[in-house]
Amino acid sequence: MHAHLLTIGDEILIGQIIDTNTAWMSRTLNQAGIAVNGKSSVGDTREAILGGVAHAAAAADVVIMTGGLGPTKDDITKKTLAELFGSEMAFHEATHQRIAGYFEKINRPLPPAMRDQATLPLKAIILVNKVGTAPGMWFEADGKVYISLPGVPFEMEYLMEQEVIPRLRTHFQVRPIAHRTLLTVGEGESNIAKRIEAFEDALPPHIKLAYLPALGQVRLRLSATWPGVLVADAQEKLEAELDQYRDQLAAQIPEWLYGFEDDSLERVVGRLLLAQNKQLGTAESCTGGYIAHLITSVPGASNYFQGAAVTYSNTQKMKVLGVQAETLDAHGAVSEATVREMATGALEALGADVTLAISGIAGPDGGSAEKPVGTVWIAVADRNRCVAFKTVFGRDRMKNIQLSATWALNTLRKFLLDSL
Amino acid sequence: MHAHLLTIGDEILIGQIIDTNTAWMSRTLNQAGIAVNGKSSVGDTREAILGGVAHAAAAADVVIMTGGLGPTKDDITKKTLAELFGSEMAFHEATHQRIAGYFEKINRPLPPAMRDQATLPLKAIILVNKVGTAPGMWFEADGKVYISLPGVPFEMEYLMEQEVIPRLRTHFQVRPIAHRTLLTVGEGESNIAKRIEAFEDALPPHIKLAYLPALGQVRLRLSATWPGVLVADAQEKLEAELDQYRDQLAAQIPEWLYGFEDDSLERVVGRLLLAQNKQLGTAESCTGGYIAHLITSVPGASNYFQGAAVTYSNTQKMKVLGVQAETLDAHGAVSEATVREMATGALEALGADVTLAISGIAGPDGGSAEKPVGTVWIAVADRNRCVAFKTVFGRDRMKNIQLSATWALNTLRKFLLDSL
Repeated sequence: MHAHLLTIGDEILIGQIIDTNTAWMSRTLNQAGIAVNGKSSVGDTREAILGGVAHAAAAADVVIMTGGLGPTKDDITKKTLAELFGSEMAFHEATHQRIAGYFEKINRPLPPAMRDQATLPLKAIILVNKVGTAPGMWFEADGKVYISLPGVPFEMEYLMEQEVIPRLRTHFQVRPIAHRTLLTVGEGESNIAKRIEAFEDALPPHIKLAYLPALGQVRLRLSATWPGVLVADAQEKLEAELDQYRDQLAAQIPEWLYGFEDDSLERVVGRLLLAQNKQLGTAESCTGGYIAHLITSVPGASNYFQGAAVTYSNTQKMKVLGVQAETLDAHGAVSEATVREMATGALEALGADVTLAISGIAGPDGGSAEKPVGTVWIAVADRNRCVAFKTVFGRDRMKNIQLSATWALNTLRKFLLDSL
Repeated sequence: MHAHLLTIGDEILIGQIIDTNTAWMSRTLNQAGIAVNGKSSVGDTREAILGGVAHAAAAADVVIMTGGLGPTKDDITKKTLAELFGSEMAFHEATHQRIAGYFEKINRPLPPAMRDQATLPLKAIILVNKVGTAPGMWFEADGKVYISLPGVPFEMEYLMEQEVIPRLRTHFQVRPIAHRTLLTVGEGESNIAKRIEAFEDALPPHIKLAYLPALGQVRLRLSATWPGVLVADAQEKLEAELDQYRDQLAAQIPEWLYGFEDDSLERVVGRLLLAQNKQLGTAESCTGGYIAHLITSVPGASNYFQGAAVTYSNTQKMKVLGVQAETLDAHGAVSEATVREMATGALEALGADVTLAISGIAGPDGGSAEKPVGTVWIAVADRNRCVAFKTVFGRDRMKNIQLSATWALNTLRKFLLDSL
């Protein structure tokens, strides 16, 4: 079966927002065994939406629309779909009460426009949106399924995961499919591929390996589709088979592997700190609090995170972390000596058992011949030792901040594993 | 005239890459007076490409394709287009020499596959790619234009700016189009719509208003297309007319408006600090460094940002910021009293002229009947005054962190504008 993704909204057509929704949707649908064979974007008019839906449905079994469902008058998706499927509109009390409850919870008065939000096509199956106001809608016509979702990413993701995917798998009787993802950090796609070449060549035809690179990390995804006649326990058998391949693959890349599935470096580090009963503190210059943000994105981080000293100025480095003026004068803020003093100083200043310190030149300005933009020093320290490393990333400020954080968290992870 | 953007390649359909090309292309085309009325993506097969081009051409005067032009065997775009336009393929000596020169310049041997790169449809006008190997192609058929460009972003951008846009402007009589975006924060789509209802209803038919909501913010976009007979200064007249509508709209929402076009709260706050020659420090609990991260995402932030004390534990709040143990005992960490002591304490601790302090319950755990998850207190202080506010967001940790940061930056902005 095939899906077509249709985004509705002029903001995509004039390029004011970058469409990240459909990339996420494509990945999620593919993982659920539903291939995407086309995507398109149309504007906010009745004609454009009707044309877009007709085109989308021509080559697909399911059309998933996003956008054009907000409470204001430029949202005509709902009315156009009602027209297309020959459906009356009706006020839906349950949806209105849910929306009213939502506004009560966030302590805001219920806007009158929310009555329109709860006025829905009678032929639609309502997909309950528990994280926003606009409900999703599911239509069926001529053996095809048409789904309309709000364009706000987290609302779309919630509805895809909770409603759309399970319903589509049941509706279209999708063949059993399974996935295992291995998370690696610190090595590029080409070198990983070289190492695991023999493993990859020996995979049976119903198991595929994909490389999914991101900044500083590569995810390896094994995907299996049940190859033969369907049996009652096909899913379990497929899962068990894939577990074996995952273990084989993991054994070949121990120094790059840090986790599985949806794990993250900050969660892995958090669990290590918790298990070792250690309190962490970070001393950040070039990352400007981004590492602390990643660490505190994990629920329960307060159990192992004391805090961060984001010492953006040299004055702060001296005052808060006790970095010596002589060190800054002799070596500069981006140096091994400074970053080591930041890490050891932070042990006391932040009341931490282990500290991570980072100082670099994020760019786009501030580089020199000796220390180009992208130069970053990091140090990890506890009461017994302090290690420091240097690297040079590129010229892009945001990439440098993100790569620095990934590299720093991985260095901390290895330090905690005592494997540095 | 209208353009349709067609991306070719399985990597888009499986969600492995996020399509940033077409957002850039849309903005660039719009600025040149060429409206994009549709976008679509198809896979790497002859059938998909033929179907995609037919669909694209149905409602547009120009079809701009990207992707599917590399040297590997899965790139069949060129052959499919030759077939579509009934064109023979021929080896193009000038293109081959250009590619050879390119490889010479980057000091790499010329791969044999480059002979294929220089084999091109005879009916195509070749668009010379001076920054890569694959040339662009321009076809004309039945009064429409079909353009094929490589998918590598900087090659596509080069060809768009140097070749495609100038040629399109000559080829078609373009109708002027213009946009203005107003950035608001602190109020939802529905209430903004209510406030500006009369303005919106009075807009002439050639000017449209769109609401683009994001977390805690709503962008309002006015779009105008020249309505009448074309005159020499139509573009300037349209821009001037739209400026007036923008100013009218801005005047109706002064307390929510914070900027225009591609600006951001962190940039606005940064410029205010710079103009007022003030150093900022943040004292963050629930946001865990996220506000500092936003502020330091802006190049040049070191000119006005001293640093942050991310005091995640009570111990740190006392030690670094001087919050009194009695205050924490009597009121808790999430309270007006604590957040005020954090803000005033940070003035000294962070050597700052103005400070922003925040403490809240990000969730998903840690709430109580009196202080539910999502409860957040913020304070902004300088040497003369300290203001504090409370709000309650929802139950989602990441949303709470992001909404808190937006709200805090906006509160700081208003404090700096002396409008609180």
